[in-house]
Amino acid sequence: MANVKATIPKGTRDFGPTVMVRRNYIFDTIKKVFGKYGYQEIQTPTMENLETLTGKYGDEGDQLIFKVLNSGDYMLKAQGLKLSAEENTSKKLLPLISEKALRYDLTVPFARYVVMHQNEITSPFKRFQIQPVWRADRPQKGRYREFYQCDADVVGSDSLLNEAEFICIYDEALSNLGLKDFTIKVNNRKILSGIAGLIGKPDKIVDMTVAIDKLDKIGLDGVEKELLEKGFENKDLAILKPIILLSGNNEEKLNSLNSILETSVIGQKGIEEIKKTFSYLANFTLQKAKIELDLTLARGLNYYTGCIFEVKTNEAAMGSIGGGGRYDDLTGMFGKEGLTGVGISFGADRIYDVLEELNLFPSTVMEGTKILICVFGEAEENYALPLLNRLRSANIKAELFPFGAKMKKQMQYANEKDIPFVAVIGGDEMQSGLLSLKNMASGEQVKITVDGLIKKMLA
Amino acid sequence: MANVKATIPKGTRDFGPTVMVRRNYIFDTIKKVFGKYGYQEIQTPTMENLETLTGKYGDEGDQLIFKVLNSGDYMLKAQGLKLSAEENTSKKLLPLISEKALRYDLTVPFARYVVMHQNEITSPFKRFQIQPVWRADRPQKGRYREFYQCDADVVGSDSLLNEAEFICIYDEALSNLGLKDFTIKVNNRKILSGIAGLIGKPDKIVDMTVAIDKLDKIGLDGVEKELLEKGFENKDLAILKPIILLSGNNEEKLNSLNSILETSVIGQKGIEEIKKTFSYLANFTLQKAKIELDLTLARGLNYYTGCIFEVKTNEAAMGSIGGGGRYDDLTGMFGKEGLTGVGISFGADRIYDVLEELNLFPSTVMEGTKILICVFGEAEENYALPLLNRLRSANIKAELFPFGAKMKKQMQYANEKDIPFVAVIGGDEMQSGLLSLKNMASGEQVKITVDGLIKKMLA
Repeated sequence: MANVKATIPKGTRDFGPTVMVRRNYIFDTIKKVFGKYGYQEIQTPTMENLETLTGKYGDEGDQLIFKVLNSGDYMLKAQGLKLSAEENTSKKLLPLISEKALRYDLTVPFARYVVMHQNEITSPFKRFQIQPVWRADRPQKGRYREFYQCDADVVGSDSLLNEAEFICIYDEALSNLGLKDFTIKVNNRKILSGIAGLIGKPDKIVDMTVAIDKLDKIGLDGVEKELLEKGFENKDLAILKPIILLSGNNEEKLNSLNSILETSVIGQKGIEEIKKTFSYLANFTLQKAKIELDLTLARGLNYYTGCIFEVKTNEAAMGSIGGGGRYDDLTGMFGKEGLTGVGISFGADRIYDVLEELNLFPSTVMEGTKILICVFGEAEENYALPLLNRLRSANIKAELFPFGAKMKKQMQYANEKDIPFVAVIGGDEMQSGLLSLKNMASGEQVKITVDGLIKKMLA
Repeated sequence: MANVKATIPKGTRDFGPTVMVRRNYIFDTIKKVFGKYGYQEIQTPTMENLETLTGKYGDEGDQLIFKVLNSGDYMLKAQGLKLSAEENTSKKLLPLISEKALRYDLTVPFARYVVMHQNEITSPFKRFQIQPVWRADRPQKGRYREFYQCDADVVGSDSLLNEAEFICIYDEALSNLGLKDFTIKVNNRKILSGIAGLIGKPDKIVDMTVAIDKLDKIGLDGVEKELLEKGFENKDLAILKPIILLSGNNEEKLNSLNSILETSVIGQKGIEEIKKTFSYLANFTLQKAKIELDLTLARGLNYYTGCIFEVKTNEAAMGSIGGGGRYDDLTGMFGKEGLTGVGISFGADRIYDVLEELNLFPSTVMEGTKILICVFGEAEENYALPLLNRLRSANIKAELFPFGAKMKKQMQYANEKDIPFVAVIGGDEMQSGLLSLKNMASGEQVKITVDGLIKKMLA
């Protein structure tokens, strides 16, 4: 067996012990909040049938799906295939040699799950799912080919209570993670449709929102320029301008919109939805979140049909750390029409970076082994074993460094693993029955009985 | 977009809410024990470079690795390839169209991890890892193409304290899961080598152990017959017979072995290792595990070099629910020679089946939403919202069924989600300020104030 260089595929990551406990801390914190609001965890397989995924993410998305080669003699089915140099060999061959692919997101597998298990699930079905997904994107800083998504969705309920509760979930989870200043932006697809209808260009809603969305970056002049390039006219701009520049608090914005969209049935419906969501929300105690109606918010526009959410932290320079919205036909692609749902997603990798930057990981998160027992030789090891047993019986995380290593190496081990206490056992300690206990943070060293030690570790 | 049937690849599984909480309970219980003994979690990517995996699992294993197609125009590199009908097209084409594959186990990725991160890791490196693996095996009852492995290993320490602690870990984790009667079988590769040497056939150690291993199934006659067929002679059987039939407690077995292997240096070394492991173990309090020296135990023989473990439950008809052992060269395949290690594995799927069969999942594991508030209409919903907020502020898992559904459907929802309490709010309740609280298990119904309700839910 030839030696192989120890590397991993580009765009993928190993998670070492420190990163793992921090990631688990984030996921556990979010999971707990999901659970508090009645959301239940599910998991779907890493591989889905290729036809389940194909066509769901656009042509570009299809390209980015990792396909899995059929097992065994995968070229068997392709033997009859005649290929000429001009043909797109890869494309023609694909369905013959691959039937499975790695999941690209959690939404399509969830839709597939809902239809496949429709007779078992409780409706409204509130599920959350935290699993990796894979995309053959070009890797770059902060963009990986394997990354975790963290989604919660409810399907089968059109109540806007769900929307309000998702805002509460964002608030509670992110506040529990220690964030102190973040904004949950809210918009509604129906309002955007109303605006596009108002200027008589309902089919241009995407161009319109894409341009408006850039207000922060390119300013009003830039937005107007882009709109004109996309086929909007000066009379359209006259209508759009006050909407783009809408200011004030949420109530003031809604009032202005109400006048602007007075004649738009769909626009009024969107305003109603936002108002109802906010009125639900008024009953709930929010911790740190600011709620902002933002008409430039348009994520996943060809997908969402009602409220749209996006979360941004105001404490660090970072894109969105979460988003979601309501959709009216999640499962139509699998033959079950008209199932409405709403869902949100947490951007776990970005939240990790924010917590790290703001130094928000609590030190208790890292608490592994509490005490390391260091011994000089075999006799000391024998002396130490009953102590080790007593510590563990008292449910204290304890390790004994096997005898034979130099004390320096043992101390280094404690340091590297962030073990707060080290008990050293040598000849003196065996004779006196008093252990030397070192506090690794302060450097303080005390002599202590075994009973005293156990008491101290349990304190 | 054509409708697609909602199915998943054969041999893969969806995990619904009930199964998920139970699986999490198993993994969390095991994780806690790993942590108590100083083991730290890591995760490695789902995809490894194909060359990292190839050749590590034998020819048959290589066939069972799921290969991932290169992204983009994957046939580009293969355009120069001339293939004739006689050639093994699949095999020749593979390296040109696939460079990545799904991890087949956690051991090879761990070895790769250790070498790749050798300058960062703390030695001895104690890691655990709980992740899915994929094998293109023919699916059958209890055998899946995607399943979780749950491994702990320590590398960089030859102390037999590690072996003893792994026995403790098995004992503590499985006892904590509620198992009351299970056996941790122990053997040592060096004892088996000593025996094979004793009869002058060290190269036939695998044939020998494979035959001995079948004692339970085919009896002594069967074992002897198989040994003769494999080229052993009657004089070999005369030596082997007392070893195969070795009885008594562990001490008695070790004493007999000591005489039998008196002249075998390696055999004596094996006996010493077992004795030292047992002497470490004598210091530790075991809960439910029985420890049994079993010379017929030979799992992964071409891999293990020292102690070998296997765990069996005596409460249910089930194969091994765990196993492991010491190996002397984990990382040689990646160019780092002579790193010794020892590791164990928990068979999570089988443990799940055992707990289910023995009804050992605690009812608290399922505790999701504690109380569902049911309302008759919008006015009642408005009345209920502040209550919902108070419940959640008190950290009680609570849901409100959005108004509009029939009471029967709401009750069904509570039933299906195993929600223990339902508070019904109608006109009477709004007028009196007393809620109707139903205990779903007993059917008992009481009138209660909001304060009383919160108190009861917190109790």
